[in-house]
Amino acid sequence: MSAAEADDEGLLWQGVDPGAPRRLAAAGLECFAERGFHATTTRDIAARAGLSPAAVYVHYPSKGELLYRVSLAGHTAALRTLEQAAGDEQDPAERIRLLVAAFASWHARHHRMAQVVQYQLAALPPRRRRQIRAIRERFETHVEGELARGVAAGRFDVPDISGAVLALLSLCIDVARWYTPRSSRSPEAIGELYAEFVLRMLGADRAG
Amino acid sequence: MSAAEADDEGLLWQGVDPGAPRRLAAAGLECFAERGFHATTTRDIAARAGLSPAAVYVHYPSKGELLYRVSLAGHTAALRTLEQAAGDEQDPAERIRLLVAAFASWHARHHRMAQVVQYQLAALPPRRRRQIRAIRERFETHVEGELARGVAAGRFDVPDISGAVLALLSLCIDVARWYTPRSSRSPEAIGELYAEFVLRMLGADRAG
Repeated sequence: MSAAEADDEGLLWQGVDPGAPRRLAAAGLECFAERGFHATTTRDIAARAGLSPAAVYVHYPSKGELLYRVSLAGHTAALRTLEQAAGDEQDPAERIRLLVAAFASWHARHHRMAQVVQYQLAALPPRRRRQIRAIRERFETHVEGELARGVAAGRFDVPDISGAVLALLSLCIDVARWYTPRSSRSPEAIGELYAEFVLRMLGADRAG
Repeated sequence: MSAAEADDEGLLWQGVDPGAPRRLAAAGLECFAERGFHATTTRDIAARAGLSPAAVYVHYPSKGELLYRVSLAGHTAALRTLEQAAGDEQDPAERIRLLVAAFASWHARHHRMAQVVQYQLAALPPRRRRQIRAIRERFETHVEGELARGVAAGRFDVPDISGAVLALLSLCIDVARWYTPRSSRSPEAIGELYAEFVLRMLGADRAG
């Protein structure tokens, strides 16, 4: 693992105590990605983390809570990426370019995390699912704000803003389904390609 | 279930013998969608189908073969939808509009089937996975042909055709992840919205 990758891993698990809690969460992620939540036992997770079966319960009250911790880390890291991508760029179209490039390439780089987070939502304990849903609304709110800003500035031509929010997020998130490290396109190249497509979708070339 | 929905269900399982084989495949689909392939037992599938545990092995040599039958039915139905959507329409942009509308709305209507088919590919027996991969290439080939036709006719402005194929299919397939029957948009409305976005992505409004 390069220093940059190690850094990226650190950011992914920010908020999960380094040491056993983080090792268990990372092991849980791998097990869930391979066999699914319901087919994974706490014993599998402990073995993958190189810890005793009892260690899981020291740090997580249940397997569902461990999934929640993984899901929270994934959602938090993805939301941070989305919200910070455009920095203090002023042009609405350039902001969208930066945002889509960062968000799409995040889903390539962290495709296993994103798969677990997106496809195993239904396995979360109900209270935790509601908490994660609340975070998920922030992705939409953020992108909606960016698009509204561009429309107001006359830079985008978007008849259906909530439809465009949906398509933009969906396109980026689905990268996690088809991307593999053997893909012919790098995460960065995917980000650039998708930014271009989204700007076209928003009519950024016609307006303004 | 309305007559139209029953018809649609029939098309979905075309090629799977009606009676026990189809009941078992449909029950397997529900179990895999709810708990994942690895957490589902053949006993679960038999119980869901209202048959004895031994009935599974009468019709399917293994749980993996049953998943393959589900996956084959889903891929075949989706490919037929994609290939037949444009009929004998001549205008390349109108063809894409029909194709995207049909393919995106199929993924809303059959979201559980599509989820199992897309997210549990890795659980297929290796030989079956290769067979399904070969079918998956036909989706790309078909869309690539449609885009090349539009570019040749001067109707699309697409610098990266294989990138556009990727984005078009991905956008439609990901409908299966977020769509629920409680979604505010109907399958047909999603199809129309996405057709419009894809035509913009292809520069169909600027060229020609």
